[in-house]
Amino acid sequence: MNNKKVVLVVGAGDATGGAIAKRFAQEGFVACVTRRSADKLEPLVNDIRAQGGEAHGFACDARKEDDVIALVEQIENQIGPIEAFVFNIGANVPCSILEETARKYFKIWEMACFSGFLNAREVAKRMVKRQRGTILFTGATAGLRGASGFAAFAGAKHGIRALAQSMARELGPLNIHVAHVVVDGAIDTDFIRDHFPEKYATKDQDGILDPEHIADNYWYLHSQPRDAWTFELDLRPWSERW
Amino acid sequence: MNNKKVVLVVGAGDATGGAIAKRFAQEGFVACVTRRSADKLEPLVNDIRAQGGEAHGFACDARKEDDVIALVEQIENQIGPIEAFVFNIGANVPCSILEETARKYFKIWEMACFSGFLNAREVAKRMVKRQRGTILFTGATAGLRGASGFAAFAGAKHGIRALAQSMARELGPLNIHVAHVVVDGAIDTDFIRDHFPEKYATKDQDGILDPEHIADNYWYLHSQPRDAWTFELDLRPWSERW
Amino acid sequence: MNNKKVVLVVGAGDATGGAIAKRFAQEGFVACVTRRSADKLEPLVNDIRAQGGEAHGFACDARKEDDVIALVEQIENQIGPIEAFVFNIGANVPCSILEETARKYFKIWEMACFSGFLNAREVAKRMVKRQRGTILFTGATAGLRGASGFAAFAGAKHGIRALAQSMARELGPLNIHVAHVVVDGAIDTDFIRDHFPEKYATKDQDGILDPEHIADNYWYLHSQPRDAWTFELDLRPWSERW
Amino acid sequence: MNNKKVVLVVGAGDATGGAIAKRFAQEGFVACVTRRSADKLEPLVNDIRAQGGEAHGFACDARKEDDVIALVEQIENQIGPIEAFVFNIGANVPCSILEETARKYFKIWEMACFSGFLNAREVAKRMVKRQRGTILFTGATAGLRGASGFAAFAGAKHGIRALAQSMARELGPLNIHVAHVVVDGAIDTDFIRDHFPEKYATKDQDGILDPEHIADNYWYLHSQPRDAWTFELDLRPWSERW
Repeated sequence: MNNKKVVLVVGAGDATGGAIAKRFAQEGFVACVTRRSADKLEPLVNDIRAQGGEAHGFACDARKEDDVIALVEQIENQIGPIEAFVFNIGANVPCSILEETARKYFKIWEMACFSGFLNAREVAKRMVKRQRGTILFTGATAGLRGASGFAAFAGAKHGIRALAQSMARELGPLNIHVAHVVVDGAIDTDFIRDHFPEKYATKDQDGILDPEHIADNYWYLHSQPRDAWTFELDLRPWSERW
Repeated sequence: MNNKKVVLVVGAGDATGGAIAKRFAQEGFVACVTRRSADKLEPLVNDIRAQGGEAHGFACDARKEDDVIALVEQIENQIGPIEAFVFNIGANVPCSILEETARKYFKIWEMACFSGFLNAREVAKRMVKRQRGTILFTGATAGLRGASGFAAFAGAKHGIRALAQSMARELGPLNIHVAHVVVDGAIDTDFIRDHFPEKYATKDQDGILDPEHIADNYWYLHSQPRDAWTFELDLRPWSERW
Repeated sequence: MNNKKVVLVVGAGDATGGAIAKRFAQEGFVACVTRRSADKLEPLVNDIRAQGGEAHGFACDARKEDDVIALVEQIENQIGPIEAFVFNIGANVPCSILEETARKYFKIWEMACFSGFLNAREVAKRMVKRQRGTILFTGATAGLRGASGFAAFAGAKHGIRALAQSMARELGPLNIHVAHVVVDGAIDTDFIRDHFPEKYATKDQDGILDPEHIADNYWYLHSQPRDAWTFELDLRPWSERW
Repeated sequence: MNNKKVVLVVGAGDATGGAIAKRFAQEGFVACVTRRSADKLEPLVNDIRAQGGEAHGFACDARKEDDVIALVEQIENQIGPIEAFVFNIGANVPCSILEETARKYFKIWEMACFSGFLNAREVAKRMVKRQRGTILFTGATAGLRGASGFAAFAGAKHGIRALAQSMARELGPLNIHVAHVVVDGAIDTDFIRDHFPEKYATKDQDGILDPEHIADNYWYLHSQPRDAWTFELDLRPWSERW
């Protein structure tokens, strides 16, 4: 046990989660990163270490309460107090409402909302005792309004936003900074490159979001002095129609 | 099988659901009402019949896909086409985020959001084939913003609103009218009478919502001609602070 | 002076204002209608009278405080108490922000927002003394969000919505029902017929709003019992994308 | 004429505007600051100069189109291109809607909204030619919702937000970053100290916003790379109820 500050990034599988972990590591945080299988975390953990940072990868099914409790317990006991928590699991799988299955509707919510509740609650319990900490949620435009073909994803993202807002209102006066980032646009990921090549082609003109720039905003939110906290901040490329 | 129009009210256990069923029955609809156990539906069914209407009570666990599919199938095959569908299950159980259990967080969502998805999807499949129908959701202020102690309920109600909005945008152009009613205030129920007596005491001054008046609004939404459909409508007593 | 109830419709020049006046007249209200020049009101006044109703047309520059005060005074003294007030002046003139003139930006606000304030305030003063009355504002989607080319119109419509919401919160507890109607779509008017013929061609399929149906919603809002008042209601054709 | 970058802060009379000017000056910008009478700007201008910065104070009635055009012309011709523009004029004067005067309702809008349009448009014309620039508006919670006693202020602030959003949507794709900052809480000013002493007493616990921290957020918005621009950001003390 030491006095190093920990950032816990749940859902560090994608470009954004990884970039956030790196950003906090550059500021001296110990980066604890999770996804379902640990081996895919290795490149990220190695990257952070290669840059002189400290990082630990954890396999954790973020939807399983026991796993989440055990993970938070382990980190707090063996690594250090979680000073910043980032929930970054998405599950954007569009489908007509007429063909949406119960299984998929449930799974999207379970991944993108329920696991956010489980992890954020568990972390918040510790933060409240220390009366300090930052809790950050990755949101989306679908968290603000529904759209044809997006009942499941919008439902999950609306749920995360409701969670973030409820937590901000309850925990703000306990000195916990809760914020919600609305990412509105395509991110520079393999997924976009492979599935939306025309969109990806706008990268030269900054038409898609750079994960490192997203990460800068998470760090910025964490750094805000408490007399001027932001709850919600949207991010989109200059060329995006909205 | 006949050509009578059916209204299906899922969650007809409370005052509001019952009033809506009665209102549609007065307009000649066959009222099909559900809740988890059928015997509690008897007074409602008897009331409607005593007024000369037709009503059928169904025990149905609205969270179970097979049950929901079977119920909609049965009604459509044996009673008539579902012309109007009302989802009216709530689950307003406040709790600090620090003490909210995974079980309760899940159950509130399962009852107040997931079952809405299951039932509305199943009904929508039939309506789309006929290119007609109305789908109405009972919402709450918690569907618009989170609040301290309301992470679970706000999450479920946000989810229902996202569902309603996504369905409205997808199904409107298919001639299905989807709408969301934001009830913002205490309703004249046994629950309010027993637990919020001071609030209930304002009934004389119309300080709490009369379920029959809420029901009038559901009927009104159903009656709107399709060149002027409402998606969202809020309802609150004149004296309510908001 | 008599005990007839008066509806005052400011901005009865277009199809919507006229239809609202007729609707209230059919319910026994004396329709007092205004626009800048009185002669254009004659067909409307004659229509209402031909249907057995009572109507009075007034030339009134709704942007001039003295004129507005005098008008309300005159109606209250000579015709009857204003029981319902409808503000229906629009000014949808799009323009790039780079070319918008100060004069036009001001005029759009003056017509579509400032005159709403003047008239509503003046009427509210009387209603509050009687502790009864309904105040209805015609809004637009531009009142909810800005758009490219709509800085002036969105500004005015945002202002009207802020006025409506502020009045609803102050005057609701004084038994005055204030509501805001968000019309989201083209209305069946000469303007749409002449300038958007393709849109107008969807009339056969109910793709544009019938002013009489809009008017039904104003009457409905006025008729709501005070334990279940609506503040905001949107109206759009079934086929509208939103 | 030189190649120094200029920040123009309109409404630099209060603590916030002054802090923003200083912040940009620290980053090497020439601070051009305006308010109605120039002498009150002297302390601010002197402060910036004492810190080694460059600053110029201008008396300008921000509501007068000719004055605004002349000011922007003068700055662009004699000092340098306006790279960042901040509109920071407020006018929070609450009043019952029943007693609000036409004169005050107009003046609040003229100061807090119309002058924002005039100045932002005039600056935008230049920025668009250069295809670069940042336009920042100081907003308030009253820009998001009306409240009892705030019809005029909410109207103006709603108008500014509509302007900001319309400009962001039109000018974003032209590489102009437009953003709106929602300040939700009391700011550390003489006004709060003198009129809300109990609120001011929470300063020790960071219960009121430090203008320098607000200013940091304006600089941050200006600094965002264009693949990840924020349109709207709220700021409030940790202890604020919302």
